[in-house]
Amino acid sequence: MNAEIIAIGSELLTPYRQDTNSLYLTDKLNQLGVEVSFKTIVGDRRTDLVSAARTALSRADIVIFMGGLGPTEDDLTRECVAEVLGRKLVRDETIVEWLRARFAERGWKMAENNARQGDVIEGAEMLPNKRGSAPGQFLHLNDASGQAIIILLPGPPGELTSLYEDQCVDRLRKLLPARNIAVRELKIAMIGESAADKRAAAIYSQYKDVETTILAGTPGEVQLHLRAQADSPETARKRVDDLAAALEDEFEDAVFSSHGESMEQIVGYYLGMRNATLAVAESCTGGMLSERITSVPGSSRYFLGGAVVYDNSLKSGLADVPPLLIAEHGAVSGPVAIALADGIRARCKATLGVGITGIAGPGGATEEKPVGLVYAALADGTKTEVAERKFFGDRERIRMWATQQAMDMVRRKLM
Amino acid sequence: MNAEIIAIGSELLTPYRQDTNSLYLTDKLNQLGVEVSFKTIVGDRRTDLVSAARTALSRADIVIFMGGLGPTEDDLTRECVAEVLGRKLVRDETIVEWLRARFAERGWKMAENNARQGDVIEGAEMLPNKRGSAPGQFLHLNDASGQAIIILLPGPPGELTSLYEDQCVDRLRKLLPARNIAVRELKIAMIGESAADKRAAAIYSQYKDVETTILAGTPGEVQLHLRAQADSPETARKRVDDLAAALEDEFEDAVFSSHGESMEQIVGYYLGMRNATLAVAESCTGGMLSERITSVPGSSRYFLGGAVVYDNSLKSGLADVPPLLIAEHGAVSGPVAIALADGIRARCKATLGVGITGIAGPGGATEEKPVGLVYAALADGTKTEVAERKFFGDRERIRMWATQQAMDMVRRKLM
Repeated sequence: MNAEIIAIGSELLTPYRQDTNSLYLTDKLNQLGVEVSFKTIVGDRRTDLVSAARTALSRADIVIFMGGLGPTEDDLTRECVAEVLGRKLVRDETIVEWLRARFAERGWKMAENNARQGDVIEGAEMLPNKRGSAPGQFLHLNDASGQAIIILLPGPPGELTSLYEDQCVDRLRKLLPARNIAVRELKIAMIGESAADKRAAAIYSQYKDVETTILAGTPGEVQLHLRAQADSPETARKRVDDLAAALEDEFEDAVFSSHGESMEQIVGYYLGMRNATLAVAESCTGGMLSERITSVPGSSRYFLGGAVVYDNSLKSGLADVPPLLIAEHGAVSGPVAIALADGIRARCKATLGVGITGIAGPGGATEEKPVGLVYAALADGTKTEVAERKFFGDRERIRMWATQQAMDMVRRKLM
Repeated sequence: MNAEIIAIGSELLTPYRQDTNSLYLTDKLNQLGVEVSFKTIVGDRRTDLVSAARTALSRADIVIFMGGLGPTEDDLTRECVAEVLGRKLVRDETIVEWLRARFAERGWKMAENNARQGDVIEGAEMLPNKRGSAPGQFLHLNDASGQAIIILLPGPPGELTSLYEDQCVDRLRKLLPARNIAVRELKIAMIGESAADKRAAAIYSQYKDVETTILAGTPGEVQLHLRAQADSPETARKRVDDLAAALEDEFEDAVFSSHGESMEQIVGYYLGMRNATLAVAESCTGGMLSERITSVPGSSRYFLGGAVVYDNSLKSGLADVPPLLIAEHGAVSGPVAIALADGIRARCKATLGVGITGIAGPGGATEEKPVGLVYAALADGTKTEVAERKFFGDRERIRMWATQQAMDMVRRKLM
């Protein structure tokens, strides 16, 4: 079974907008054993939309149209799909009444062009939309002209996902051959993508029935997506679990997540479990480490805060680094990272303290201290460890790597 | 003139990867007066690629293929395009020798399958690739079968952009009718997209010859993209400038950027110009404001640093907020925001101090203090202003809005 996903809207053909719904739908279709063979992005022009629909119907078993279901003249998906299928549009008065009531609820009178949203392709089922005014449509073609499944969904992501989840999954399941698919996601910290792939490939290549995708997540994170299909749910589950176990043996404690959790979540999980608190003093990362840690709801339970010590005077003023230490070793040095971790830990009365200093670039490098050089330190009150790393890439990437390094040190400390 | 962009690679049909090259190419093609009518994403399967190529050539004047030019068996773009055109592939020995030398330079012997990268579609020009091993191809079809421009580019973004810039722009310019196109980009702070569109539409609808795209940038930022085409470069320039001026009159000082600069850059620009320094104390934004400001290279010239005061003890310990003030008004309150701004400014000896406190959610709300309530304060040593705002959306959005609010206050203070 293969699918084509068509995203409709002239704004998706500008340099500023990107279709992202298709990533969600691809994931969901894969879970049903359906592969996506084509994605097409087309504007609101009638001839173009007809061309895209005709092409898709000629080469895919399932065609999903996203967008172009609104009330305006630009919203042509219904008309164009009906035209390609040689079917009529029939106005569904129940939907029109529902739309009218929806407007009335808000104290508005419905403009008559909104009634177009009640036009359904002959033979299709209307899919009510809880979150917006545009209903979806589901059509199972099964006649002399062939077999196909055609789905029309609204473009706004919130409406699309809820409509797909509530109205499409079960309908598709009934029409598609039953599949037993199991998935797993492992995440590995602080190993480059190609190095990780080299080590992983030796293992996953022995599991021919498990589809393995390796990809770089945020800098300092490599993801391994495993997916197996088998005769029974148990066999599919066993195959991905076996491969996951073999990969965990290979990468050992570099595997920080075995079910897709983020590094920020894992660090929060360990801190909460150990009843520990964290404070950080950041120089080159400029607040990014704090920002990442506090992106997790509820992080106030274990994250106290800290200082962004961009200026050297603040390294002393907010994190008690002796000015002489900076004069002796330079602000970007192991001893200063250690003093930052110790100082902020003591200041904030935290269980753990982190200090980061480095050169994010593009300026600021010297002969001995190149762009990408980062020191990250972790203090626990008895001993303070420091890592010296050299990261590559632009300012953003170097800062991401540095924060990942620091979080990974916290994770390993608490593991 | 219309174009179709085809992205090739099975990884682009997984839930994890997205084609982004097409946004770059769309921008570049628009600058030459070419509209993109279709984007297609297709995997490495021969029949699918042939289908995509055939469809594209039947409906677009310019077809750009991205990816599938490497040396492996999965790299089928050359073969499939040649097949659809009914042309032969001819091996270009100069390219093969160049490839061989490229391997030798690195001390490697070239595997023979790499020679496939020297296969050129009959009639096409080879486009040498400075950054990688896969050359591009440029073919101007102009015969009984019709007219078309076909371009093959490698998939890696760095290679694609340099090859397009160096090898394709001039070739396209020669073949396309001369166009005089001018563009402008305005950015507006702290007004919602639909409110901004309502006010902007009354103005841009009077400029029928200027194409105006309005879109939401990061939360708290709306972008207006203006684009005009005219008989002369001067007229095109004048039309976008006239509309930009009319829009600037309407939105007045809410326009923070008139040539596409980011809020972070603008704030840095004003701070530098006024020889002023900034320090910040953040609670609910957890370091995001510092992170955004320090994302600009060279920000150490005007950004000193500050404190992330997630825990209430640190509001006092690092930013000198009197504990009694917190007890009296609560941590999320105007007086505490003001005390944070005053305190961090004095501590860091900065020209300006910012304080932020609020409820980012999803937890932490009370009857009087809902999720999204944010206080942002700005101190300059003589007076301290505070803004009370209620933002909507998830945790990430509320934090983005809050940081944008604070930066906008700094900008307005220095303007």
